[in-house]
Amino acid sequence: MLQVITSIEDIKQRIKTFKENQLSIGFVPTMGALHEGHLSLVRQARKENDKAVVSIFVNPLQFGINEDFTRYPKMFDNDCELLSKEDVDIVFNPKAAEMYPNGFCTSVIMEHLEDKLCGKSRPGHFRGVAAVVLKLFNLVKPDAAYFGQKDFQQTVVIKSMVADLNLDVNIKVLPTIRDKEGLALSSRNAYLSETEKNDALCLYKALIKAQTMANAGAKNAREITAEMEEIINNCKSAKIDYISIVNPETLEAVSEVQHGDVDALAVRIGKTRLIDNIILFFLLAVMWLSSYS
Amino acid sequence: MLQVITSIEDIKQRIKTFKENQLSIGFVPTMGALHEGHLSLVRQARKENDKAVVSIFVNPLQFGINEDFTRYPKMFDNDCELLSKEDVDIVFNPKAAEMYPNGFCTSVIMEHLEDKLCGKSRPGHFRGVAAVVLKLFNLVKPDAAYFGQKDFQQTVVIKSMVADLNLDVNIKVLPTIRDKEGLALSSRNAYLSETEKNDALCLYKALIKAQTMANAGAKNAREITAEMEEIINNCKSAKIDYISIVNPETLEAVSEVQHGDVDALAVRIGKTRLIDNIILFFLLAVMWLSSYS
Repeated sequence: MLQVITSIEDIKQRIKTFKENQLSIGFVPTMGALHEGHLSLVRQARKENDKAVVSIFVNPLQFGINEDFTRYPKMFDNDCELLSKEDVDIVFNPKAAEMYPNGFCTSVIMEHLEDKLCGKSRPGHFRGVAAVVLKLFNLVKPDAAYFGQKDFQQTVVIKSMVADLNLDVNIKVLPTIRDKEGLALSSRNAYLSETEKNDALCLYKALIKAQTMANAGAKNAREITAEMEEIINNCKSAKIDYISIVNPETLEAVSEVQHGDVDALAVRIGKTRLIDNIILFFLLAVMWLSSYS
Repeated sequence: MLQVITSIEDIKQRIKTFKENQLSIGFVPTMGALHEGHLSLVRQARKENDKAVVSIFVNPLQFGINEDFTRYPKMFDNDCELLSKEDVDIVFNPKAAEMYPNGFCTSVIMEHLEDKLCGKSRPGHFRGVAAVVLKLFNLVKPDAAYFGQKDFQQTVVIKSMVADLNLDVNIKVLPTIRDKEGLALSSRNAYLSETEKNDALCLYKALIKAQTMANAGAKNAREITAEMEEIINNCKSAKIDYISIVNPETLEAVSEVQHGDVDALAVRIGKTRLIDNIILFFLLAVMWLSSYS
């Protein structure tokens, strides 16, 4: 039976009982407006742990002043219905006033990671993400927490935080879920008109182009991203925020692509900012590695 | 039997066993060179918990570039002897290279608290303190942690961090321990010559003067600190860093003193920077309060 908890005191009590009974906890932090991407994380959390906890909290701290905080899609009842079907134990839906009471003043900053990629056009975003995830980890005390690869930089920031602060949470990153045509699922896709939804496919097309080039032996990052830019610029409603091939740990842009580097991009389709990424692999490296496995 | 643990993996395992046996943990984080001030914390931790853990770690992150990191007193064997007598269970003495491996990049920042008082002349100090205390809390998982009032700003920063990040640690602040003449005990007193030790008494004398004035009805902060300045400036080897009467939660300087405000100061005696403080009370307020208790 899905239980909805809204107060910090109540979630603490409930988690305490789980811990006393030595039950493992799988946790999926979300901002709600759940889609199959979230549900893939929920199913994994459900499968791997005694208890599955999902948080739904549109975190004001991670939105910039001109961003979509107030209009971010809210569908709480529908979300609960979906989570109930997935046999989730707890939905934690705290109030912003209790998460950030007067006097709240703590920032968690991952220097060298937060000012790259999305951090450039969303200053303060990742410290907002880090703060809320750290708070939620401290409240829910999960054994494992599940994140989607779509928010790649977020996963790098959180893994760093967990390592640096010696947190006892296993961070699991699951593949991006896409619709039939390749568009990465995102709650923000709800902002797109039908035409824009079609235009938005250029992100995936550009990523596929990059992978195809890598398969064919291309190693020059500039050459690959130039081809991607061309694909996206061919789409009238698209405006590139960034396209970058980066080291998957440091997020530093690379000039010569290596197996496992991440090709990431952010593109505005009309007023909606979308992100996507793929991990580039080289067929030869994959074959070489599998011959040793 | 006192057990010395130096690796992160070992402390995790040991704490896990404590938790599985539902033993409460009292924790005293220190930089070693222990004195009676530390030991008063250790005794309280010992008394109130099933297990007492003390960390000894001279945290590089909280020292400025021209500060005394390299010459900070180190007396590990003597410290262990003292802790053994106090029946402490574990001394955790990690290596800096394991606490801060390559790639470490997380800062924990308490805006509005870190740039005041000591923060002004020690930029970065409190974020260094916050980071190491948060790491140690995550490793030792204490039910209660014990700090001395002498490091008043530190206790405010840590209490804020604990509240903001929803940490499950009870922060206990115990009174400053002084020598017979009133000098607040500090590992840094070891830097003082005999003459300087005598000069250093001006800090306590100034604080006593402030308390005497408050008892006599003085409420004007400027008037009180002016008298304190005079006492300290009378001492040739003393150089005032700051004297300030502040709200005990916000650390904002007050102009009109209220019951419970904190009178804090930092003074250089020769090359040694010393800090001290008292909580100012008004006799009338104390009498009024006790008439209701």
